[in-house]
Amino acid sequence: LTSKLPDVGTSIFAVMTQLATEHGAINLAQGFPDFNPPAALTEALAHHAQGPQHQYAPMPGLPRLRELIADKTARVYGVPAPDPATDITVTSGATEALFAVITAVVRPGDEVLVLEPAYDSYAPAIRLAGGRPVYVPLSLPEFRPDWDRVRAALSPRTRLVMVNTPHNPTGAVWTDEDWQQLAALLTDSDTLLLSDEVYEHMVFDGRPHRSALHHPALRERAFVVSSFGKTYHATGWKVGYCVAAPALSAEVRRVHQFVTFAVSTLAQLAIADVLGDATSYDYLPRFMQQKRDLFGQLMRGTGFELLPSEGSYFQLARYQQLAPGLGDVEFAHRLTQEAGVAVVPVSAFYHDGTDHGLVRFCFAKQDETLQAAAERLRRFR
Amino acid sequence: LTSKLPDVGTSIFAVMTQLATEHGAINLAQGFPDFNPPAALTEALAHHAQGPQHQYAPMPGLPRLRELIADKTARVYGVPAPDPATDITVTSGATEALFAVITAVVRPGDEVLVLEPAYDSYAPAIRLAGGRPVYVPLSLPEFRPDWDRVRAALSPRTRLVMVNTPHNPTGAVWTDEDWQQLAALLTDSDTLLLSDEVYEHMVFDGRPHRSALHHPALRERAFVVSSFGKTYHATGWKVGYCVAAPALSAEVRRVHQFVTFAVSTLAQLAIADVLGDATSYDYLPRFMQQKRDLFGQLMRGTGFELLPSEGSYFQLARYQQLAPGLGDVEFAHRLTQEAGVAVVPVSAFYHDGTDHGLVRFCFAKQDETLQAAAERLRRFR
Ligand SMILES: CSCCC(=O)C(=O)O
Ligand SMILES: CSCCC(=O)C(=O)O
Repeated sequence: LTSKLPDVGTSIFAVMTQLATEHGAINLAQGFPDFNPPAALTEALAHHAQGPQHQYAPMPGLPRLRELIADKTARVYGVPAPDPATDITVTSGATEALFAVITAVVRPGDEVLVLEPAYDSYAPAIRLAGGRPVYVPLSLPEFRPDWDRVRAALSPRTRLVMVNTPHNPTGAVWTDEDWQQLAALLTDSDTLLLSDEVYEHMVFDGRPHRSALHHPALRERAFVVSSFGKTYHATGWKVGYCVAAPALSAEVRRVHQFVTFAVSTLAQLAIADVLGDATSYDYLPRFMQQKRDLFGQLMRGTGFELLPSEGSYFQLARYQQLAPGLGDVEFAHRLTQEAGVAVVPVSAFYHDGTDHGLVRFCFAKQDETLQAAAERLRRFR
Repeated sequence: LTSKLPDVGTSIFAVMTQLATEHGAINLAQGFPDFNPPAALTEALAHHAQGPQHQYAPMPGLPRLRELIADKTARVYGVPAPDPATDITVTSGATEALFAVITAVVRPGDEVLVLEPAYDSYAPAIRLAGGRPVYVPLSLPEFRPDWDRVRAALSPRTRLVMVNTPHNPTGAVWTDEDWQQLAALLTDSDTLLLSDEVYEHMVFDGRPHRSALHHPALRERAFVVSSFGKTYHATGWKVGYCVAAPALSAEVRRVHQFVTFAVSTLAQLAIADVLGDATSYDYLPRFMQQKRDLFGQLMRGTGFELLPSEGSYFQLARYQQLAPGLGDVEFAHRLTQEAGVAVVPVSAFYHDGTDHGLVRFCFAKQDETLQAAAERLRRFR
């Protein structure tokens, strides 16, 4: 059986989580919180679990949940409300949303622009659709787009541009200026936009999250993907969604219908019970910023040099002082084994393994976890 | 935006369910029970909802659930246990399992043999992978394969054969003789087998469910798909799985990893709590047979002529006496509107709309629902 994805191995997240388990390491590698979702959410699920709604949800999602997503989008972003009937599709996590969008729009031979470092699911989804990822590296040290390189990478065959803000793994956050640059490049093209905004509620230092939906020139060509797993500390619930104009959403739904058909009815009911209450997510920027700041303070006196993190729940760090010349994969393994703290090497986010000597920490952890990890890291020489 | 699935409209199941709602009709159209999952299962979910496990499950599924699936497969089928580490992948419903298998193995230009009538997700998944469905009609009145036609339809380009037993929508159940015929045709080929066995626990009149796994000549080339949604009356939970040899499962996982990554942790925990207890499913053949028999008795004195149903929770019926010459789509609409009972026209399961004058009833309903529906149908002339 010849593989359609021959070079896909076990994901770096699973590899590092596994290694963490083997070595009793604190897992700051895979991106997930080590604390629970809000009690209102888990109680809502326990309630519905004992109720009568155990059969298929409607294919595009529960109408009430879609209405609440529309309301929230309008309220939080200050944009016209998407139409829940036509513009919103609930998916099995943001991963399915990304996959369904890519599968719906990318045809054999199409090019898809991917800014690197990039999340590991983008390229395989593009390749399964017969497309070709065209990679443009973000420019260090701030991981911002080099617009000349983006322009040069675009072609009449570019079907889709992938954007991710706040950005995994770097924590970079797009400004209106970034979006305007992109809008200017796409204006006269048929190129579509897939905007992965799963960390929308984790933007720090008073910055706003700026969505593709804020830009009328982009909105009509954009698929915007978000994730209740991220927003509600419930990565295991697997509920995400895609917002897009009716004609675009129609294509996403055509694929979603045959990929998973529908999403857990009970999880949708529970999320709908809390989503109308803005206090269920509006504390997040401050909450995660405190974690970032605490982690930053705790890391002083270790040999790591932290890069800025403007958003997401990730933090990059240089380790050159600790291990001059060592590759990031080797360093991540050594840190897991010898310091007892698991991280992700950033080269895993580059198709060609570009190694900038950086590792990624996930700081969406209890303060005690961050303290224990920093203590181990301070002892590591 | 040109569509990759231009001819896909709203699924017939959603159309008929919608029409049922509009007309206050009893919904015997879409396949789902109108009763709850076992209390042990819903209580287990309520329990875990209040527990600490809200983050990503491992990509292939919770190890404990995979072990229990392996044990159950060995025990119920009397076959060597699949290896939970390598042979079992938990998916977002059987729909995702079917999609992931097709996406993993079908390459552009490949042919896939589909026996019709067939479930509506097969062909779109094949087409999205660049494959071409090659349709072979099952022979009326018993909807058995015509092996000469199957042989004639196979070619060196046939990548995959799709089998579904017990069969949706006809209720036909494959015998060992059917499997042996298929095995003989595939022996010297590289053709793979995708066996949709989601109704495995609903086989009637003392017949056994015969799985692709029972046939050593087929087992090594088979992907066998099942569904906890069907087995536990929980179609809205969206948990299914695929059993296949290690090399085949590896390809399914490569795709699953980027389609949904993982399945609801809480749903997996709850199912694992009940799956070890065979009483949670071994009553099903008798339970569903009673429903079939009750429905059959109740339908006497209506103008419908019921076809045999050997398994699944579906029952086909001819309506010629009631509406000579009327197309099945028109009849299904009329029945929903005028009699207040929604059904699915069987032509929806044929790529070319072949119309045998048949409609499908779902009898996985409370006895009172079946009684109320039959009463309405007896009044319909
Ligand atoms: C699906 S496992 C990866 C989780 C994640 O988003 C990350 O660690 O980047
Ligand atoms: C996913 S909706 C269709 C449910 C079903 O299996 C059927 O009605 O055939």
